[in-house]
Amino acid sequence: MKIVFIGAGNLATRVSLALKEAGEVIVQVYSHTENSARTLGEKIGCSYTTDLKKIYPDADLYIFSVKDSVLPEVIAGIPSNDALWVHTAGSISREVFAGKQVRYGVFYPLQTFSKEREVDFSVIPFFVEANRRDDAPLLQNLAGKLSKNVRETSLEERRQIHLAAVFACNFTNHMYAIAAELLEKEQLPFDLLIPLIDETAAKIHEMPPLQAQTGPAVRYDRNVIGKHLDMLQNKTLKTLYTELSQNIHTLHNDKEQYL
Amino acid sequence: MKIVFIGAGNLATRVSLALKEAGEVIVQVYSHTENSARTLGEKIGCSYTTDLKKIYPDADLYIFSVKDSVLPEVIAGIPSNDALWVHTAGSISREVFAGKQVRYGVFYPLQTFSKEREVDFSVIPFFVEANRRDDAPLLQNLAGKLSKNVRETSLEERRQIHLAAVFACNFTNHMYAIAAELLEKEQLPFDLLIPLIDETAAKIHEMPPLQAQTGPAVRYDRNVIGKHLDMLQNKTLKTLYTELSQNIHTLHNDKEQYL
Repeated sequence: MKIVFIGAGNLATRVSLALKEAGEVIVQVYSHTENSARTLGEKIGCSYTTDLKKIYPDADLYIFSVKDSVLPEVIAGIPSNDALWVHTAGSISREVFAGKQVRYGVFYPLQTFSKEREVDFSVIPFFVEANRRDDAPLLQNLAGKLSKNVRETSLEERRQIHLAAVFACNFTNHMYAIAAELLEKEQLPFDLLIPLIDETAAKIHEMPPLQAQTGPAVRYDRNVIGKHLDMLQNKTLKTLYTELSQNIHTLHNDKEQYL
Repeated sequence: MKIVFIGAGNLATRVSLALKEAGEVIVQVYSHTENSARTLGEKIGCSYTTDLKKIYPDADLYIFSVKDSVLPEVIAGIPSNDALWVHTAGSISREVFAGKQVRYGVFYPLQTFSKEREVDFSVIPFFVEANRRDDAPLLQNLAGKLSKNVRETSLEERRQIHLAAVFACNFTNHMYAIAAELLEKEQLPFDLLIPLIDETAAKIHEMPPLQAQTGPAVRYDRNVIGKHLDMLQNKTLKTLYTELSQNIHTLHNDKEQYL
């Protein structure tokens, strides 16, 4: 099976390299950024292009991994063929390909990728969808070469998982970033927090996050909360601190009415 | 050295058991809750009491590990002696003991503790303070039996570290909890998110959180953000999602003016 990657960002980089490692044949990479296209093409050892018109027409699978907002125009710029086209986005319907292509689907790995960081694909959940029933096994099989955790999903489920992932990953990472800024302000090293960050993540392997919660907010310790609010000079952070503390308190005291 | 623990909560439980494991002698545990006092006393194999007046007067070190808001009244309820008294709180001055006791200080481990979960103490940063110069080595030595990472600190530094820890741990855990609620609502298993949560924490061992950030907010992908806001029916979560996304964008575009 010959694969073309449309996109050369974080996800495209890690997934294409993992597929190559698993023995798949990536024949070409497209990116509208010359440097990204060349870098990934060289890493994979395949050709690359920045011109949608030069994308090979005869591959078997086209994996679209571009910013959601440009996906429709990228699709529109490539001639239809009889191959399978999939995207890797968490919140976009596979129907984005409808009308343009006969065979299409979704190939969504639930992970945070950075170009320069290797990850263990074997544990990453892959969510696949295909509009044609006989294409689903093809995608499951491909994902199965990377991961032990592959499932077919609906758009609704995938969207909900993506939304939950924004909280569990992007907003979580932002909490780390705020902590880093607060420490940097006092010339304290961020490394101090690493054992705490590791343990916070490790705990939820063993118990639900609701049970794992500690700290001033869940105790609703007004003394500490008040001191912390005094220390935060930034108005937005003051608001976030207050709202997050209240929200912790709400979830712990009225879980049934929480959502 | 004979040690008394005042408090039998999460932190008191894990720290007292770790000290016992390290060969220290815990002679007594106090908690105002009978069940907590007995449970911890039995785990350690020492006596326990729920009566401040029955706390042994002849120990060498008293470790106060109670809710911040009750610490002053607990201190007031115990007769002064010539031992060293320390608390384990992130945001309270050691001067909470002043006037009552001659020798006092702080013994603050930076970690999230739950009674039932063992943690690796060797990597936990311990922050110690003593009002009398010759007591600092005693506390450093004691912390050093548990951890490779012990330092003397000031109240200002400790408070800033505690504030940063609320973001890096408590608010992070709340992001996990929100994600869990969102998945539960659609009958999706929380386990799906564990590889993502692990990788999010693991990434910041290698790169600063600012560089590790991915997802719709840092790209400011209005399309995805809009869809996610439509999906969130809870008004508070809608607000949190919006503010956190904007805050990620602010930090990434104007780090110098962020705090």
